[in-house]
Amino acid sequence: RTLRIGLIPGDGIGREVIPAGRKVLESLPSSLNLKFSFVDLDAGFDTFQKTGTALPDKTVDTLKKECDGALFGAVSSPSTKVAGYSSPIVALRKKLDLFANVRPVKTTVGSSRGNPIDLVTVRENTEDLYVKEERTIEGPDGKVAEAIKRISERASSRIATIAGEIALSRQAIRAAAPGTSAHTKPMVTITHKSNVLSQTDGLFRETARKALSAEKFSSIHVEEQIVDSMVYKLFRQPEYYDVIVAPNLYGDILSDGAAALVGSLGLVPSANVGDNFAIGEPCHGSAPDIEGLGISNPIATFRSVALMLEFLGEANAAAKIYTAVDGNLDDGKFLTPDMGGKATTQQVLDDVLKRL
Amino acid sequence: RTLRIGLIPGDGIGREVIPAGRKVLESLPSSLNLKFSFVDLDAGFDTFQKTGTALPDKTVDTLKKECDGALFGAVSSPSTKVAGYSSPIVALRKKLDLFANVRPVKTTVGSSRGNPIDLVTVRENTEDLYVKEERTIEGPDGKVAEAIKRISERASSRIATIAGEIALSRQAIRAAAPGTSAHTKPMVTITHKSNVLSQTDGLFRETARKALSAEKFSSIHVEEQIVDSMVYKLFRQPEYYDVIVAPNLYGDILSDGAAALVGSLGLVPSANVGDNFAIGEPCHGSAPDIEGLGISNPIATFRSVALMLEFLGEANAAAKIYTAVDGNLDDGKFLTPDMGGKATTQQVLDDVLKRL
Ligand SMILES: CC(C)[C@H](C(=O)O)[C@@H](O)C(=O)O
Ligand SMILES: CC(C)[C@H](C(=O)O)[C@@H](O)C(=O)O
Repeated sequence: RTLRIGLIPGDGIGREVIPAGRKVLESLPSSLNLKFSFVDLDAGFDTFQKTGTALPDKTVDTLKKECDGALFGAVSSPSTKVAGYSSPIVALRKKLDLFANVRPVKTTVGSSRGNPIDLVTVRENTEDLYVKEERTIEGPDGKVAEAIKRISERASSRIATIAGEIALSRQAIRAAAPGTSAHTKPMVTITHKSNVLSQTDGLFRETARKALSAEKFSSIHVEEQIVDSMVYKLFRQPEYYDVIVAPNLYGDILSDGAAALVGSLGLVPSANVGDNFAIGEPCHGSAPDIEGLGISNPIATFRSVALMLEFLGEANAAAKIYTAVDGNLDDGKFLTPDMGGKATTQQVLDDVLKRL
Repeated sequence: RTLRIGLIPGDGIGREVIPAGRKVLESLPSSLNLKFSFVDLDAGFDTFQKTGTALPDKTVDTLKKECDGALFGAVSSPSTKVAGYSSPIVALRKKLDLFANVRPVKTTVGSSRGNPIDLVTVRENTEDLYVKEERTIEGPDGKVAEAIKRISERASSRIATIAGEIALSRQAIRAAAPGTSAHTKPMVTITHKSNVLSQTDGLFRETARKALSAEKFSSIHVEEQIVDSMVYKLFRQPEYYDVIVAPNLYGDILSDGAAALVGSLGLVPSANVGDNFAIGEPCHGSAPDIEGLGISNPIATFRSVALMLEFLGEANAAAKIYTAVDGNLDDGKFLTPDMGGKATTQQVLDDVLKRL
């Protein structure tokens, strides 16, 4: 099988980690019977400054027509408002209907806590405040701006369903490799703020409960947590959580909070997942402060490559990458500065390639 | 001076901690020349079940006409949707125009970290998604619900202004008591998500920047942080932050996250502050699991009493309470179970009264 992968480095260190991710794909053992072809695609703030759009049509079209999946690096946000600029990754998620943003975090070297953490946030990726329907009016006391938060039954149902499926597949992986996780049964925690937003978050909550009460999910323990308490609990007992499902904005916030628990954003991958497409995307930003120094941590990208492969049905290839990455981290000889080490991006890449 | 204080215990352990808070006020040393009178007021889920409204008009009227300040305990949220019920504290904040929710956290006994944490979140308290303007339509793919997030220049300006004033007064207190804090200059961090919500959060950001650029705030270091990064940073280097100012919902989430850093929600106070009124409110909930056992932690309430007094212009009385509470915690002999101790609410109260 040959998979065609779009490469969208974006800005800043995106241009360092995405080429490293490509190398990992190219170096997978031939026994996997998996080939890759690549196409370079533009998006980001630099692209915006050159062309007037942060997400050229060509990028979207090529992904839709030619590609099986993609890797997205990072984009810079302008530090003051720039007319006409808007985030290409948010647009891409919507245009390709990549309805789920999946962000696993797992304790490893450099972690700040004793107990093993092994959780994944499953974030709705197409609606909520991210519909970006805003307006501003000039009132008697100055400007008043409004934004729409939209929550639909359809999107809530499918995000809860994929959260349930992920909980079951995590359980299957745990069952096949006893001792690798402290979780004993699959659990999904529904996060919302329905005590204030009874209609929108109320709809999310009820729809998620309903989707997760399906027969096939009967082995899953379903809980819920108000978003502010969720952040509190995430800090106090992160090891308790397995799958956390949330509307878009809460998922954005919670997944960054979860990343903080495992030491560095440079370790945390994500996948933007649709029905037949997945984009791997490291959770970190474009990090202008270290751009060009060759010391950006490529681990989040390697894990995003693996996560993309999982959602493209290539779990064996993904497992190879996870094992190589864990080997690199456990060994601890080649760690980038964000992890307290001195290695360059290239050295981490070389070490991981050796372990593939 | 006599202050008239409304007492609104609400539900659950609110009925244990608010009477304890009253005792603290009654026991302040007479040298302060401060007297109190009290009026008991209803609100909460029990009130809703008895009367059909969670916030009786009488409660609001009495606060407006008779009182200088109030203490609010906690309210239970129904575990499934109950028609007609909505949170009385959210309504109270709006009806009394208590535009700022001030939540200080400071490292003390039982803290989970080494570095001293000394920060306060200043949360806008009247708008954002808390305007609760929602609607639901029945679409071709099921229900679609929408909520309005409203951000005004007026509310953003006054919340940033009070955040600046709080930063200055914290600095003055630090200057008067060297060695009590690691902060060397006042700092305000503006939190928003203007990379996605350019109009609403963009307005918050710009207005806050403008308000904080006033001459009187020239000694303050002003920064900003996107809300997801803010949660990340809050977990990674909480000791760095001084004053964090945020729109309503982010403030709700961030203040719970900050509370997690200092050991127990049972320690964290808040004040809902308006132009001439303040309601002290512990950050914890009604805790139905421990209701009636007499072991709820009254510290958050005592500190909320002090915070209320500060905003009513009684800083000396507030300082007495803070010192007594810190004495109790440092001593560590009378701690409630949430702090790893065995003391009852009454024992903690008695110990604090002795120290007043
Ligand atoms: C860059 C920003 C628009 C984006 C988001 O909010 O989704 C980022 O924070 C993320 O989590 O991928
Ligand atoms: C109970 C709830 C409505 C409330 C809020 O969201 O404001 C609480 O979380 C708080 O922070 O005071």
